[in-house]
Amino acid sequence: MNKFMKIAFKEAIKGMRGNEGGPFGAVIVKDKKIISKAHNKVIQANDPTAHAEITAIRKACKKLKKFDLSDCEIYSSCEPCPMCLSAIYWARIKKLYFGCTRKDAAKIDFDDELIYDAIKGIKKGKQIEISEIDRLECLKLFDEWKNKKNKTQY
Amino acid sequence: MNKFMKIAFKEAIKGMRGNEGGPFGAVIVKDKKIISKAHNKVIQANDPTAHAEITAIRKACKKLKKFDLSDCEIYSSCEPCPMCLSAIYWARIKKLYFGCTRKDAAKIDFDDELIYDAIKGIKKGKQIEISEIDRLECLKLFDEWKNKKNKTQY
Repeated sequence: MNKFMKIAFKEAIKGMRGNEGGPFGAVIVKDKKIISKAHNKVIQANDPTAHAEITAIRKACKKLKKFDLSDCEIYSSCEPCPMCLSAIYWARIKKLYFGCTRKDAAKIDFDDELIYDAIKGIKKGKQIEISEIDRLECLKLFDEWKNKKNKTQY
Repeated sequence: MNKFMKIAFKEAIKGMRGNEGGPFGAVIVKDKKIISKAHNKVIQANDPTAHAEITAIRKACKKLKKFDLSDCEIYSSCEPCPMCLSAIYWARIKKLYFGCTRKDAAKIDFDDELIYDAIKGIKKGKQIEISEIDRLECLKLFDEWKNKKNKTQY
């Protein structure tokens, strides 16, 4: 096994056996050195966003004191869900290695097909009810941002 | 303005003026009472996942001591990005109200079109390089999960 994937694997084992969350682990690497490792902690932390990849990204950013991980790679024991894939994009990570596929995950009841569909605009199954309200009021926020001086764009 | 959206709006103002992040705020409501409110803190927290919605979800779960917010609604000053929309699904929130649209956000350079495309499987622009490795080894994790007794499925 790839040595970093093996560590992601061990993280997954640790999280699963400790009843912290599902069988998922992730590792972030920079210049062939491990910056962070994490496992799914949804159950233990009561946090539906505490997937392995999100947690690894948060730890790596904290350690490197920056929100841009474009000099890093991520290893995940499973293909990231849309939330985690998006987080990888926002963190500007350039390279992702994954082990199991989303189809493998669906077979053990971690099924993100509904979310993929929602993002694709396909409406089937149990959807969230979504309403646009107060757009014109909220646009004032964007006007202020546009005219704000010395802002950090990210 | 809707009273909860107004609070999301105020959160956005607070975060933007305090240079904590972009002009985005979110509020989580249960039985017409506010459970959590948050603003984007990407810059201040050096955390690319610290969007308003993710932060509001994490706060609400911490407060309610559960990872299932199916009895809650979320108000966001802007249409959620794919990361936040996915998090709303994982948190099982049933109803989402948003103010500005993603097209409005793109106009002030918060453009998640690339991420939408990536999730849709459309490959254009700057993509992450993705490789599947060690799948058969990683599948052992899923076998163990499948056979695990007394697990919390989520």
